Amino acid sequence: MNYKKLGKILGKIMIFEGLLMLAPLIVALVYSEPFNNILAFIVPIVALVGIGFLLQIPKASRETLYQKEGFALVAVVWIIMALFGAIPFVINGDIPNYIDALFEIMSGFTTTGASIISDITVISHSLLFWRSFSHWIGGMGILVFILIFIPESNEGSSMHLLRAESPGPQVGKIVSKMRVTTRILYLIYLGLTLLEFILLVCDKPIAGYENDKVFISMLTAFGSAGTGGFGVIPGGIQMFSAYSQYVIAIFLIMFGCNFALYYLLLIGKIRHILKSEELRTYFIIVFVAVAIIFISLITQISKIDYTTEEAFRHSLFQVASIITTTGYTTTDYNVWPVMSQTVLLLLMFMGGMAGSTAGGIKTSRIVIAIKGAVTSVRKLINPRYVPKMKFEGKTLEEKTVNDVSSFIVLYLVIILLVTLLLSFDPINGQTITIISDAGEYQVEHGLFANFSSSLACISNVGPGVGAVGPYSCFAGYNAFSKIILTFTMLLGRLEILPILILFSPKTYKRT
Amino acid sequence: MNYKKLGKILGKIMIFEGLLMLAPLIVALVYSEPFNNILAFIVPIVALVGIGFLLQIPKASRETLYQKEGFALVAVVWIIMALFGAIPFVINGDIPNYIDALFEIMSGFTTTGASIISDITVISHSLLFWRSFSHWIGGMGILVFILIFIPESNEGSSMHLLRAESPGPQVGKIVSKMRVTTRILYLIYLGLTLLEFILLVCDKPIAGYENDKVFISMLTAFGSAGTGGFGVIPGGIQMFSAYSQYVIAIFLIMFGCNFALYYLLLIGKIRHILKSEELRTYFIIVFVAVAIIFISLITQISKIDYTTEEAFRHSLFQVASIITTTGYTTTDYNVWPVMSQTVLLLLMFMGGMAGSTAGGIKTSRIVIAIKGAVTSVRKLINPRYVPKMKFEGKTLEEKTVNDVSSFIVLYLVIILLVTLLLSFDPINGQTITIISDAGEYQVEHGLFANFSSSLACISNVGPGVGAVGPYSCFAGYNAFSKIILTFTMLLGRLEILPILILFSPKTYKRT
Repeated sequence: MNYKKLGKILGKIMIFEGLLMLAPLIVALVYSEPFNNILAFIVPIVALVGIGFLLQIPKASRETLYQKEGFALVAVVWIIMALFGAIPFVINGDIPNYIDALFEIMSGFTTTGASIISDITVISHSLLFWRSFSHWIGGMGILVFILIFIPESNEGSSMHLLRAESPGPQVGKIVSKMRVTTRILYLIYLGLTLLEFILLVCDKPIAGYENDKVFISMLTAFGSAGTGGFGVIPGGIQMFSAYSQYVIAIFLIMFGCNFALYYLLLIGKIRHILKSEELRTYFIIVFVAVAIIFISLITQISKIDYTTEEAFRHSLFQVASIITTTGYTTTDYNVWPVMSQTVLLLLMFMGGMAGSTAGGIKTSRIVIAIKGAVTSVRKLINPRYVPKMKFEGKTLEEKTVNDVSSFIVLYLVIILLVTLLLSFDPINGQTITIISDAGEYQVEHGLFANFSSSLACISNVGPGVGAVGPYSCFAGYNAFSKIILTFTMLLGRLEILPILILFSPKTYKRT
Repeated sequence: MNYKKLGKILGKIMIFEGLLMLAPLIVALVYSEPFNNILAFIVPIVALVGIGFLLQIPKASRETLYQKEGFALVAVVWIIMALFGAIPFVINGDIPNYIDALFEIMSGFTTTGASIISDITVISHSLLFWRSFSHWIGGMGILVFILIFIPESNEGSSMHLLRAESPGPQVGKIVSKMRVTTRILYLIYLGLTLLEFILLVCDKPIAGYENDKVFISMLTAFGSAGTGGFGVIPGGIQMFSAYSQYVIAIFLIMFGCNFALYYLLLIGKIRHILKSEELRTYFIIVFVAVAIIFISLITQISKIDYTTEEAFRHSLFQVASIITTTGYTTTDYNVWPVMSQTVLLLLMFMGGMAGSTAGGIKTSRIVIAIKGAVTSVRKLINPRYVPKMKFEGKTLEEKTVNDVSSFIVLYLVIILLVTLLLSFDPINGQTITIISDAGEYQVEHGLFANFSSSLACISNVGPGVGAVGPYSCFAGYNAFSKIILTFTMLLGRLEILPILILFSPKTYKRT
């Protein structure tokens, strides 16, 4: 392992995190928050920048990175980012427990949006900003972000880092230069976020939050762009106007698309976009899911009476929010008919497109797995059949299909293992009171709550179903469960492999 | 497709099913049941034997079968067996609805044990016998059973049939001759069943069933041998003595083992048995599961107060019953602590060993998938790493690993799809009253009940959790859901591929 080179890159990223923390520091100053909140950011900034510079001192003997080093580095970077990112919450005391703070910021960076905060009103503006800003940073990938600014790192190493961090089975370059690619992607990301912010800020303010309009719009835009889903006010998106809910739903669906497609749109290659199988599948899934839920909501008995428009809006919004693994909610889907809930559960597995900010298994993997399954049946029927699988117009190698299957198996094994680990928590069997737009009701925390926590965390959705549903939070779990779930979010965001490589003893052997 | 040859084999099997139905007919005579019950068997026997002989008339142009023909035949055979096997229930009127009867007998042949009968006391002895006997026939495979008696079919064709029907990723021959292998396996099966019957019949009779001792012991032995799990008396195995419960638990664990291992035991190759990785993994899983559940039951608060012996017995029994996908129950695990329930849920996925009568994904597939995952991580760490995977002492081909991954993915996709289809049922949202050894309580039929139904059917377990748990039944589902679940049981028993091949249009094209 080329520790010195790895340390150098890590150091730069730490300095970068320090700089990023200046943004919430400014928010603290703007809102004239108490000195504790200023200190809450200054301490980690000094630590990050200090350690970051120290790591620059040793001279690396080799400039390139091996693939395994790239993967391990990505895992370390995310862990370090979260470890330092949690500090402000503890210093200012908004989240006094460090493990809780770590859960919260890991949920931020991984764009999960699962929260241990039961009362959002106690959190200062600066920390609300830091939470939602972490969604925006994590959405496109911390390293992708930093790669734009690291001038000397070479193309080969960057590719390893990008591959380790980017969601989806394959990583393609849009243009030949990696740095140019990442810059284009980030500009699109920035542009879309800005557009959503403008559309939200044009709406009439939410009653009781007249002075916080810009703040709330900005944080909501961060949360949607990263497909994170942290709420800013009690009740979350339910408090927003129908107009804003439609705006957010549409932007969520857009942020769930592969960003490379926007680049193709910019350079006018619309025919290429229409040919994208993943895009077509993604939109078919969205359409079918909205249709089923809408029909279910207007025909089946439900605890909440929706008008037809409301039923349509909530169907669209929840599908957009769950398939992109954001986790924003406009209504309590816990009380929806089972048919609607089942559709949402399936969407939690699927997730958005590869190359988007969404989590989950990803549309492309699902398409590839289906093609693989069809091919294996055809081979059994006719042993002489030579498969010519194609995906997005390119030949689909058998190796890719196999990697996708292994990934899905691993994904599901982790969900089940985490469910088992969560079952040790004393919270199980306890009754939890939920207050939502469906009124007040009680649910028992059981196996299904644990399963949905596990799924919601690995898929980076955030809220689960039942006792950990959209109107409750993860605060009831004990420290052990919270650590497990923190880790699960990271496994989901980095798509498992970098973490396995980091913790495999074989990684540290000379080859 | 060699329809004439396929028809000939199918015809022989139909004649065979007709002959098998003589057994419940004898039971009807022994218990002097009304004429309706005699007729209930005579009608299908005449139909089966008649059609069976008609199918022998055409002369086949080719004696051999292609692999795809073997797979499709196995699927057809199981469907025909169930279609005719359901008739007696309808004629005698014990289950007046044909779809219900089909569900029940498919649950029998596939050794699932899921039932739509809410009151077992209304079923006549002859039909109780036919139900449990179907477990015993289906356990080792209908075709395997018949292969012993079909003299002229050639070895190659038999291998295709055996491969299509046998559980597990690989089919090995014990001895060079296929027919000899199947005969040895069936003798072991018969011997173990007989031994269990004797041990059960030696017990003191169950209060209120003094005259039915032989009958109950025999049917319980059938149900355990096939790892099916149909109950014979209200309350099921809960009514049995502790001694009988231990006997059944131990036999269940034995029936979950690969039968080839018993052959090795018979010929004294004990060292080979000890080397079996699958056996070791199977026993480790059983041991760990029993330990976790036992600790959970004695340390955590539960709705039922068990003594230490009871806690141990119920832990052992439920683990044995669920890992072998039998579904017998000695206590209401619905009210167990979440930790215990979670372990049972994981066991439902796993199932027993390949080459046993158990369902589920199978221990060997799980071992192979884990080895594959470890290897892919090692390949990423060191791209020059040449994997030398071994399983049971033999080289593990990459193709096998990939087939296993695809199988698991397909398995899980089906579970989720069936859960979605079940969510359309109007039963969802309804409250169901359960009466068990934990008293009377109510559960809502929801997403999780559907998920557990789906899992319990594809894994051939039988009872699920909650509204479809061990003390309720599947009667509440509508006809559409029952048809879906009937099909799911068959998909699980035949391990998906034969059904896919039967329903693929490509199968019927000339190649």
